[in-house]
Amino acid sequence: MNGFACKANFSASNFFFAGLAMPQPTNNTLGSIVTLASVFQVPGLNTLGVSMNRIDFAPGGLNPPHEHPRATEILFVLYGELEAHFITTANVLVSVTLKQGEIFTFPKGLVHFETNIGKGPAATISGFNSQNPGREDIPTSLFAATPPVPNSVLSKTFQISYQEVDAIKSKIAGNP
Amino acid sequence: MNGFACKANFSASNFFFAGLAMPQPTNNTLGSIVTLASVFQVPGLNTLGVSMNRIDFAPGGLNPPHEHPRATEILFVLYGELEAHFITTANVLVSVTLKQGEIFTFPKGLVHFETNIGKGPAATISGFNSQNPGREDIPTSLFAATPPVPNSVLSKTFQISYQEVDAIKSKIAGNP
Amino acid sequence: MNGFACKANFSASNFFFAGLAMPQPTNNTLGSIVTLASVFQVPGLNTLGVSMNRIDFAPGGLNPPHEHPRATEILFVLYGELEAHFITTANVLVSVTLKQGEIFTFPKGLVHFETNIGKGPAATISGFNSQNPGREDIPTSLFAATPPVPNSVLSKTFQISYQEVDAIKSKIAGNP
Amino acid sequence: MNGFACKANFSASNFFFAGLAMPQPTNNTLGSIVTLASVFQVPGLNTLGVSMNRIDFAPGGLNPPHEHPRATEILFVLYGELEAHFITTANVLVSVTLKQGEIFTFPKGLVHFETNIGKGPAATISGFNSQNPGREDIPTSLFAATPPVPNSVLSKTFQISYQEVDAIKSKIAGNP
Amino acid sequence: MNGFACKANFSASNFFFAGLAMPQPTNNTLGSIVTLASVFQVPGLNTLGVSMNRIDFAPGGLNPPHEHPRATEILFVLYGELEAHFITTANVLVSVTLKQGEIFTFPKGLVHFETNIGKGPAATISGFNSQNPGREDIPTSLFAATPPVPNSVLSKTFQISYQEVDAIKSKIAGNP
Amino acid sequence: MNGFACKANFSASNFFFAGLAMPQPTNNTLGSIVTLASVFQVPGLNTLGVSMNRIDFAPGGLNPPHEHPRATEILFVLYGELEAHFITTANVLVSVTLKQGEIFTFPKGLVHFETNIGKGPAATISGFNSQNPGREDIPTSLFAATPPVPNSVLSKTFQISYQEVDAIKSKIAGNP
Repeated sequence: MNGFACKANFSASNFFFAGLAMPQPTNNTLGSIVTLASVFQVPGLNTLGVSMNRIDFAPGGLNPPHEHPRATEILFVLYGELEAHFITTANVLVSVTLKQGEIFTFPKGLVHFETNIGKGPAATISGFNSQNPGREDIPTSLFAATPPVPNSVLSKTFQISYQEVDAIKSKIAGNP
Repeated sequence: MNGFACKANFSASNFFFAGLAMPQPTNNTLGSIVTLASVFQVPGLNTLGVSMNRIDFAPGGLNPPHEHPRATEILFVLYGELEAHFITTANVLVSVTLKQGEIFTFPKGLVHFETNIGKGPAATISGFNSQNPGREDIPTSLFAATPPVPNSVLSKTFQISYQEVDAIKSKIAGNP
Repeated sequence: MNGFACKANFSASNFFFAGLAMPQPTNNTLGSIVTLASVFQVPGLNTLGVSMNRIDFAPGGLNPPHEHPRATEILFVLYGELEAHFITTANVLVSVTLKQGEIFTFPKGLVHFETNIGKGPAATISGFNSQNPGREDIPTSLFAATPPVPNSVLSKTFQISYQEVDAIKSKIAGNP
Repeated sequence: MNGFACKANFSASNFFFAGLAMPQPTNNTLGSIVTLASVFQVPGLNTLGVSMNRIDFAPGGLNPPHEHPRATEILFVLYGELEAHFITTANVLVSVTLKQGEIFTFPKGLVHFETNIGKGPAATISGFNSQNPGREDIPTSLFAATPPVPNSVLSKTFQISYQEVDAIKSKIAGNP
Repeated sequence: MNGFACKANFSASNFFFAGLAMPQPTNNTLGSIVTLASVFQVPGLNTLGVSMNRIDFAPGGLNPPHEHPRATEILFVLYGELEAHFITTANVLVSVTLKQGEIFTFPKGLVHFETNIGKGPAATISGFNSQNPGREDIPTSLFAATPPVPNSVLSKTFQISYQEVDAIKSKIAGNP
Repeated sequence: MNGFACKANFSASNFFFAGLAMPQPTNNTLGSIVTLASVFQVPGLNTLGVSMNRIDFAPGGLNPPHEHPRATEILFVLYGELEAHFITTANVLVSVTLKQGEIFTFPKGLVHFETNIGKGPAATISGFNSQNPGREDIPTSLFAATPPVPNSVLSKTFQISYQEVDAIKSKIAGNP
């Protein structure tokens, strides 16, 4: 339970992962893509309480507002130039500009997002203090859930018409 | 540090709170209001890892999508009839209808919301497994933060025009 | 392991419970009864670290001295008027009088008890920071265990005769 | 906060304690005495989550029913012969006879007690997984608290008369 | 999961262990031997977060530098006279001399070791705040692992020749 | 205590750090250097339970055997080619070869080390699940502590002569 020593059969490959090495395609609506190295990809992480991910950004790409229910994130810029932000529970927007090699922190459960503000592609590597941080993506959770969030809720939440809600839903649902 | 026995001066009032007893006014845009009984209101909760809150709803009132970064919530209906929902990290909307005395659970960090679907007012009492659960309110964190979230981000996030972003911001910023 | 997102098959009903809605019969010796909403009744609570219960009291009813080995309790009065108490590890009795809507806290592992001091029935709802708080009931654990606690121990513990121990055992064992 | 490395000034003596080396006098009503090596006696234990204690028993001595709100206990018999018991939340009495060098475990928050069943004195050393386990002693918490637990509560709890409650109170209050 | 109350079939023997009662033979190269009472020997410890061990020392015996990845250790001297040491993350050697009945603490994950400095045998009992503390033994992990740590690494680590590395390996590998 | 929301005065710079961006000089005996981004360098990490570091390696450089008492490490190769190893509590050496972008995991408290096996310099970025992981470096903790570990201990531990111990001490003590 606490500690892998009791696993009789394991090999070094359980603790290794090559899937973060290469940039992934960013030709989607938002211009960004996340690649996970959580316990599902790296089974040796089980009970160890850490994981990583890689985010690739096209120029102008956005990793949209989201939060991780089970982990704080510490982000390192592999290359490119980013703006990164989180929003506190007191609705304060905390923002930085990041260059290659600089790091920033997103406290557990707080909504955050990053934009590539450079001319070329950008990429980041993040460490998490959970083997399964989870990700609650704000636009897709609200506008592309299954079954859908009722229009009455979204209309009241964002003070927009049902028609505007439907317009957002039809655009978001098409995004990966 | 772990345990209140070393606090030399305390009284029963540190563990008591009367502020959840009465309904609070719900005559705001959303038709709902939250009253906290966290460690800031009940200092004896420090190190004990629990807290409560009360939510009052006008007929049709909505407690808008939000999440608690540091706690799971278990909600009990004092009176009235509600629909309650949470959204998983796989974007599944999980929904129930609740009557007086029924309970529902919102896992830590997952976005959730409730609507009063009855004809009269409704009220709930929730238990949390943190003395300071925090609340990240989705509409106000995104559209009424200080400083504001850039229009470019919100436009891309929700696939709406800058004009539409500004319209939402002006409506949300006026809400309590 | 940490987080329900990996449970492939679940439904909203796993997180819902109706069993706390109605008062339960209190026509027993102590004039009180506890109804649980722990992980055994609400399977979705697994790994989430919260639970609830309801206590109903007849006029004069007592929820006898007990403690929860795995949780702090925060108690809310649904209706009626109660006296509530806990005892610190320094043997200080901490007491309050509670009316409808007021709350009180019982720190993890400390012995506590409540009495209905009103003229009618009373009921409470409690939140716990464990999905399985457990309950160690002082009178039944000491005087109605199986196999029984030896008379020699109880006689010395409470400085009473074997005859008095036997008298208590015969009365307590008959209680639910 | 987590880890002592940031304490600039410490010495080996913060992690050392000689106070468990010698038997303590057991000439009291119960024939037992507990000596603590918690964070208050051994300041270096702060944040480290362990502590120890020693219990000395006269022949026939009893360490009366009690529980530790913040720790599991693992007990080692230094010398002598003991009976040790704990009571589960299902009111099952779990009992063993222990000789020198044998160990037994008392799960966190469960009521337990030990009796010296040998002809000479006995002594034990226990490890705890908290630097401040706390101790809720059942007889003194219920019958010798300050202010006192009301007779009405104790009478109903143990199904005895007020007179019998008063008799126990007068005897227990005189014990150390 | 958290708490043994849900284990339907258990007996007192799950929480009991006699294996620490007797000295074990110390006629090996180092003159010391460790006997475990972890969850593998005492299955009832599962989820309870404690364990014990016994160490026997021949005169002059050494329990060589090692650390426990998952637990702080609190050590009690059963008999004999020892020197005990741990090394902080700032490379400070913290040392004490211990006689019968005295205790010392080894913070989680810090390298520590003990030497019998008395004329006769010595023995200790330790409490740990994990049911499975683990032990990373410095000499055997570095010089007797399977497969072996490369000579190039050990040569550079300790600034010794490959020949010297081989000499140490051949001596350490023969030790239990 | 649990959550930064109560810190009234903070700025984005508390969560930001530029110190990992540039390679650091590796012209020391071991050909490697570690740069920390822990709570001491990034004060906003307090209570958040994560940190990072960067390791630079000269060709052939070694990050010598060490362990982190308070964290698991997940390592990402920025550039270069490395061999990475950890040793389990069963003395099994677990080894991988890593190229740019590949990751490996070092479980909490287990001894591990890495060697640059490429022709040019190498660098890594690691995530940790503690804001203050600590580092217990095996060669310097044993051979360059203050005060020094006694020769008698090191001689017996590694089965080498006092002269050999002194030789190692004089070489190690000169390393940073």
